[in-house]
Parts: sequence; C-alpha cells; structure tokens
Amino acid sequence: MREILVLTERELKKCMVLDRDANDIVEDAFAKLASGTVVMPPVLSMDLPQAHGEVDIKTAYIPGFDGFAVKISPGFFDNPSLGIPSLNGMMVLLNANTGLVDAVLLDNGYLTDLRTAAAGAVASLHLAPESVTTAAVFGTGVQARLQIEAAHLERAFERVLVWGRDREKAERCADDIRNALGVEAIAEDNPAEAVAESQLVITTTPAREPVLAAEWLHPGLHVTAMGSDQAGKNEVQPEALAIADLYVCDRLSQCAELGELRAARAAGLMTDVTPPELGQIIDGSRPGRVSADAITICDLTGTGAQDTAIATVALARARAAGLGSVIRQD
Amino acid sequence: MREILVLTERELKKCMVLDRDANDIVEDAFAKLASGTVVMPPVLSMDLPQAHGEVDIKTAYIPGFDGFAVKISPGFFDNPSLGIPSLNGMMVLLNANTGLVDAVLLDNGYLTDLRTAAAGAVASLHLAPESVTTAAVFGTGVQARLQIEAAHLERAFERVLVWGRDREKAERCADDIRNALGVEAIAEDNPAEAVAESQLVITTTPAREPVLAAEWLHPGLHVTAMGSDQAGKNEVQPEALAIADLYVCDRLSQCAELGELRAARAAGLMTDVTPPELGQIIDGSRPGRVSADAITICDLTGTGAQDTAIATVALARARAAGLGSVIRQD
Repeated sequence: MREILVLTERELKKCMVLDRDANDIVEDAFAKLASGTVVMPPVLSMDLPQAHGEVDIKTAYIPGFDGFAVKISPGFFDNPSLGIPSLNGMMVLLNANTGLVDAVLLDNGYLTDLRTAAAGAVASLHLAPESVTTAAVFGTGVQARLQIEAAHLERAFERVLVWGRDREKAERCADDIRNALGVEAIAEDNPAEAVAESQLVITTTPAREPVLAAEWLHPGLHVTAMGSDQAGKNEVQPEALAIADLYVCDRLSQCAELGELRAARAAGLMTDVTPPELGQIIDGSRPGRVSADAITICDLTGTGAQDTAIATVALARARAAGLGSVIRQD
Repeated sequence: MREILVLTERELKKCMVLDRDANDIVEDAFAKLASGTVVMPPVLSMDLPQAHGEVDIKTAYIPGFDGFAVKISPGFFDNPSLGIPSLNGMMVLLNANTGLVDAVLLDNGYLTDLRTAAAGAVASLHLAPESVTTAAVFGTGVQARLQIEAAHLERAFERVLVWGRDREKAERCADDIRNALGVEAIAEDNPAEAVAESQLVITTTPAREPVLAAEWLHPGLHVTAMGSDQAGKNEVQPEALAIADLYVCDRLSQCAELGELRAARAAGLMTDVTPPELGQIIDGSRPGRVSADAITICDLTGTGAQDTAIATVALARARAAGLGSVIRQD
C-alpha cells in the first residue's frame, strides 16, 4: 500500500518558516548545482495570451536527495479582479529512486517565496561583509520582507532602510520588518542615501529600468538583486556589474538570459567573462569576497534546485508533525 | 473556500473506461490542435542516468476547455526489481481561467493508457475503411488490448489476429480480447498473414527495427502505428509511408522527431511533403480516405492535448459520481 501526503498552504505554513535549516538545504542545493551532478532541464514556459496568463514548470534532480520536485507556477493576471492572487502554484515531490509520487504540496507559491528568500540569505552568508550593521531593501512586497528576514539569520544587522516608489507601502513594509525582527526599520525616500548607509542591499523590484545606479556602489557593499527573472527586467545599472570586484550568478545560463547579466551583456559589458556561480563560491572552487572593502553583487533568477531543496525539508517536517492528508494508492 | 479533488487510480478506474465519450473528447482535442488555437509547448524531458530513469512533462491548453492538464510521466527502469511498474505518472488539472489547481489525478499512467487508445480509435474512425471485419494487432501489452477495445467502438470487427514475438503472450492477449469484446481472437505467428487478412492493423510494439513490411500493404488497409514515441523507435518500414495513399500524423512536429516519419525521413523518404495532421482530417481541411481501396497510415506519438481532454472527462465523471478526496484550501 503506497501513501501520498497532500499538504495545503495552511499546513505548510504551520511547519515551514524561514530558518537556518531552510537556508542550509538551499545552500547545499547550490553547492551540488555547481558540482555539475544536478540534472536541471530548461524551464518549460507556456504563454497563454488568450487567458492573460502564463505557466512555468521547473524541476531539478539533486543526487543524494530522497526526492525531486516538479513545480508548476501559473500566473493569471486577471485574477485580482476575481479577488484571487495572480501568482499561485504547487509542487509534486517524486521519489528519487522510483519516480513514484511521494507528496503533493498545494502551497500556492508559499514554498517558492521561502526558497527565494533562502537563496538571498545564502548569498549574504557567502558574499556580504562579515559585519553588516545596516541593510537596505528596494521594493515593498512579500520578497522585501522575506529577504530581509532570511538575511537577518546570517547577518545580525540592527537597522533596515526600505525604499519603494510608494512611500506609504515602504512605511508599511518597514513596520512589518520592525515587528518581525525587532530591529530599527524606516522608509528611506532617497535610494542613493539608502545604499550609502548600508553594507547589504537587496533589490526585490519588478523594475524594467535600473533602480540601483553604478555610482552608488561603495567599498564594503554587497548587493543581491533577485527581481529580474524575465528577459525584460533589470534592477541594477549594467556598469555596476563591471565595476564590482565580484559578480556572482545563481545559474550562469539563466542569468545570461533572464537576470542582470542579460542587461549588462546587452549593453556590451561582461561579454568576455565567465562569472562564477553561487555554488562555486560555496564549495570553494571559485574565490568569494576577498576583503572587507570589496564590492560584490549576486544575481538570483531562481532555480529548480531550490524547489527540490525546500520541498524536501517541507515533506520531512510535515511528516514529523503529522500534518496533511494521507491518500492511499492500492 | 477552494476545493481541490484528489483522485486515485482506483477511483479513476471506477469512473473512466474506454467509451465513445472518451473517443469523442479526444477527437475534439485533435480538431482544436489542428486549428492552431491550442497552446502546446514542447515536452520537457529529463534524463536521469544515475537513477536509470527519465521524466517527461507535457501540457496543452485547449481554448473552450474548463481546464488544462500538466502531466508528469516518470519511467524508472529498475522498478520491476522492486515489484513496481517502470512507468507511472500523474496529472494536475489547472483551471483555464485562473490557473488554480482544480484536481490532482494520481492515475499511475491509467489515463495516459486510455487517451492513447482513444487516439487510435479516432484514427480508425476517420481513416479505416467503413467495413472492417478483421483487425490485427502487433504487440501483446496493455496497449494491444486497449487499442483493439477502443477501435472496436468505431469499427465492429468480428475477428482479431494478435501477433507478438512471444507466442504465449500473444495467446494470452487474444484470450483477453475475446473475453472483453466477445469476438473471435487468435494468436497469429505470421505477421504478413495477419496483415493480409485484416483491413485494420494497429502496431503497439517498442520495436527499433520495422515489424511491418511495406510489401505487406494491400488495398483497403488502414495501419495505425502508435509504438514509436522516441527517436530510436520504428515499427513501420519507411517505404510503407511513401507507398501509402495517405500518411497522417497526430502532430507533424512530433512525428518528424519521434514517430515513424522520423525513420522514413532518415531513410531519405517523405522529405518533400507536408503530411496532414489527424485534426485536419477531422475538421475537413485536408482530405482523408478517398476510397474503400485506399491504403492509409496514421502515426501516433501522443500529445498533451489528449491529456487535457481525458483529464477533463475524468474530473467531470468523478465529480458526478462523488468520488475522490476533497482537499480544502483556505
């Protein structure tokens, strides 16, 4: 008798929050991704103009993990008029030895939010200066909050500056961060000033024109840009990538197509270099930050390996907590 | 409060069998596929040599259907040593308007078996001679049985000849067909003889060298070849495609890569023609069988459109029958 565990978003929220475990397994996934043993096919993307929607399907098989996730991420942009979020999604966790379905995670994108924030935390762990007293975040959405929360697990900054185009939203975001972390958190109207005062900047916007200027970079700064996950997006001015002492991709092939690297190369920069991947910094095969004064940038586009990692933790925790509906196949 | 219906293979078998409804909706899906309005991205294929496995993911959005299926089909070839079938799989049915998950169909490949057989029946309906008294099937597996059963809904043949490399398996297959349909069914050792006596031949083997010779073709014959779904497979001798009065693809782009057309073109044949798709025969935009004496061949590689079609029927039937486990999202 085979059993399949079905977990809802509510159940997943009971057992999964941002914590060191989530950061650690995502770190492990990146290291394995860089080692070349992970099987991660290109994303299956389906555009549905008739429905004003799109669907992305990602998967990655990581040797040594018990299972591998297939993630289905729909975006249907008329949903808000029906009172439903545009972005949803779910994951299926298949057994790595048999291909049988072990679990169905009806997370509505919650696990994607977590694994995306955990990747930012891993970037901070390996690339930010040892001492970060002030962090800035660009953008005021879910990822602005989660990225700061996850990074705070790795760098115990005492002050957060929130910049967004909408002052009111920036203030609400700062309020939430203050309440979640017990740190000083304020909205900052001037993005240049936010960068100047910070040792860690995380950009989480859907910008299509740069929101972070190259001239704002200063010694002892790490920038994680996680907003660009499509060819049309661009948060960081192309010159910044060339000026930085170190530019790191989550996945080189993806960043060249969807990330900040795409925009830089389109501008004629970064064309003759092979930037390292985050996993190569983790496993030591490429050098990371070389001094407290260095300027580093990490470009995150999101990988199927992170999905497999977070789904693996989620299933283990849900089982341990006795959560979910058991479906019996016979 | 959103509800998601989870259905197991056992529950799906209670409400889904081969019948005219299944054939009809698959026919409709093919017609829409040919009309150019269906969105069907290329298959996402992941090869897992470390696990002696592979995973294929298919999807297709058909305008006018309430939902669209994402099908995950793993094949793990060490499974039989664990007492588990190599091929498994499941489908997720997403709402066509919102992208939200409507149902999870844990069918272990059962719905794929049905939709594959239904496609064969649709090919027989539109391409076989009006009068079929004897049908032959090559191969002795699940599809040999189901293809004959589905085709019998469209052509009331009274006699079935089963050819397979293993005489004993052919006899067991004939027994099963006799019991299922109440027709005469016998194992035939000589494949040429089986073709000579039949007006309809269905090939269902995993052959990598042709099992049906061009010289066996005779006036008033229709052949459906459904075994080749990978670049290495080939059931029908390439010359047969060139000799036939009409050769039809389920999906031209797929048949050219995975089907009998691939082998024919590799042999230098069929290179300067654009064969019709089954949907174009159904909707009348390309001519089908022009006379009782014509020789026709249909090449089936399997499409995501069929998955969306069969999943749609399955969900409607399961709901009507009150089957499945309801998972509440809130």
